Amino acid sequence: MKIIVDAFGGDNAPVEILKGCRMALDELPDLELVVTGKEDVIKQVMQEQNLSMDRMTIVHAPTVISMEDQPTDIRRAKKDCSMAVGLRSLAAGEGDAFISAGSTGALVVGATTIVKRIKGIKRAALAPVIPADKGCFMLIDSGANMDCKPEYLHQFGIMGSVYMENVMGYKNPTVGLVNVGTEDCKGGELQHEAFALLKADTSLNFMGNIEARTIPSGETTVVVADGFTGNVVLKMYEGVSSTLLKKIKGVFMQRFTNKLAALVLKKDMNALKKTIDYNEYGGAPMVGVTKPVFKAHGSSKAKTFYNALKLTYKYVEAKVTDQIAEAIAQSTAAETADEA
Amino acid sequence: MKIIVDAFGGDNAPVEILKGCRMALDELPDLELVVTGKEDVIKQVMQEQNLSMDRMTIVHAPTVISMEDQPTDIRRAKKDCSMAVGLRSLAAGEGDAFISAGSTGALVVGATTIVKRIKGIKRAALAPVIPADKGCFMLIDSGANMDCKPEYLHQFGIMGSVYMENVMGYKNPTVGLVNVGTEDCKGGELQHEAFALLKADTSLNFMGNIEARTIPSGETTVVVADGFTGNVVLKMYEGVSSTLLKKIKGVFMQRFTNKLAALVLKKDMNALKKTIDYNEYGGAPMVGVTKPVFKAHGSSKAKTFYNALKLTYKYVEAKVTDQIAEAIAQSTAAETADEA
Repeated sequence: MKIIVDAFGGDNAPVEILKGCRMALDELPDLELVVTGKEDVIKQVMQEQNLSMDRMTIVHAPTVISMEDQPTDIRRAKKDCSMAVGLRSLAAGEGDAFISAGSTGALVVGATTIVKRIKGIKRAALAPVIPADKGCFMLIDSGANMDCKPEYLHQFGIMGSVYMENVMGYKNPTVGLVNVGTEDCKGGELQHEAFALLKADTSLNFMGNIEARTIPSGETTVVVADGFTGNVVLKMYEGVSSTLLKKIKGVFMQRFTNKLAALVLKKDMNALKKTIDYNEYGGAPMVGVTKPVFKAHGSSKAKTFYNALKLTYKYVEAKVTDQIAEAIAQSTAAETADEA
Repeated sequence: MKIIVDAFGGDNAPVEILKGCRMALDELPDLELVVTGKEDVIKQVMQEQNLSMDRMTIVHAPTVISMEDQPTDIRRAKKDCSMAVGLRSLAAGEGDAFISAGSTGALVVGATTIVKRIKGIKRAALAPVIPADKGCFMLIDSGANMDCKPEYLHQFGIMGSVYMENVMGYKNPTVGLVNVGTEDCKGGELQHEAFALLKADTSLNFMGNIEARTIPSGETTVVVADGFTGNVVLKMYEGVSSTLLKKIKGVFMQRFTNKLAALVLKKDMNALKKTIDYNEYGGAPMVGVTKPVFKAHGSSKAKTFYNALKLTYKYVEAKVTDQIAEAIAQSTAAETADEA
């Protein structure tokens, strides 16, 4: 398997990205990596870090697209950046998947316009897998699509189910629609219509509407939302967790006896923090494009990027893209039959 | 001041509601309460609980609207319920405010159709005040309005500012629009247009777009969102906090030494839990209707209901309704001038 890696995406590129690459190569003997970016810098880093170039090739890209650039710059001003070069290489069949820790917006634009959507897919989605109280869940979409139509949400349910079943190992995963209440009639127009489509699709294990309150429990495996709502869910998850942990730290430091108690709890508390840190899952697959594209966290260090690479490997191995194409073709056929 | 109380709204009605009423009456000497509901039951509870009826009068209402009823039943099948009777009494000028811990949906429908909106207000909003890392913030709207137009969000900003300044004491409160990023161009159509309206309104201390991640910090005092998004924010706040606290409890019980450490921390941890419990604020004002209407938490016990009653008292005392009417009239005048 050959995965193309944007060596210059993310806050800690290229050093941590390249270190993560080596970790994955050392673990997976059938993996080859193509890294894109400034060739001389990559060579220098590999040498300085004393890392072998075995099973790694470099494709030179002279520039980098940053968070400050417009996402659409990937098509114009920054079309020779490491991300664009990697995506074109993927589209040309020079690899099985592409991964980047760079600008999310640019990756969404680049994946959609260069790698292109699977036939029948109306919108590709960015869908992180997030740790829950029990297991984990996929949040689809988490921000790639702002103004959504009901049929997009239906397809998100289909794509999420395929991914969670085949990559994360959930048999017949439950699907829920984020709403303001669990009753069928809840929400606005978008939710009413999306609910009807999801419910009518017998290929899905659709559980109905779910309230945001129950998302962190993990009861629902595929959490479907428009990109705006999904982004709010994701960022509330982050914001509330970090605010609360900060407050708890305050309690631990409040007085001498508390400090001693905190010392006792330290190891178990750190383990807990790890279980709720969604960075542990390494990032988010972009689903709905013709080949696997994976967004690693912008702040990825070697370990996180290595985790993301392993998920990308699994994403390819499980043939998720083919399975999504098949599920969508069946869904479209069913719709056409209904209409006839 | 005379406040009308739905004695039969909420999970713990009427006993806890009536106990909360008595606590407020005992603290506020110029307060009078009119309680609505089954007269014989109210009298019996007051006697059994050994509570004085001083400055309390009863208006009989034979039925109760429950969570199982349709919100619109308040206009039809349940038009003689304790909530409807109270709202009609408020509309008829027989009190200065109305408070209920009953069905939120029914209260929104009832307040809008019976008490009616302030002239110029396009939609009334349900707007809880929520504890933050620093101080608190108002989330407006939190679920009364699903499909919103940009001008509703603009008015939410105005109403929230008036409330937070006059009831909660924030001078020139900051206003932010919930969005997927802080840049001006973020979000969907609704956000783009609402952003423009909020920015153009020089009477507001508008800080621009805010990401959900920063909401719990309390940096922004008036957090503006459509009711769907606001509801997701509110329920994620609840869901993430409770899941995390449950996990921390798990750590505390994990082994014997942890249990001892937890004992040391217990008092400070309980104090912390209280600071993040949004029940402490007693509920949510409904803003935009001609007279103060307050939604107390459905699970209110006497203490929570007493807190809610004190906030309702302040809501009346600060003449928030008049001030909103004035602010909206000015805003409408400014728009007309712009158009001329």
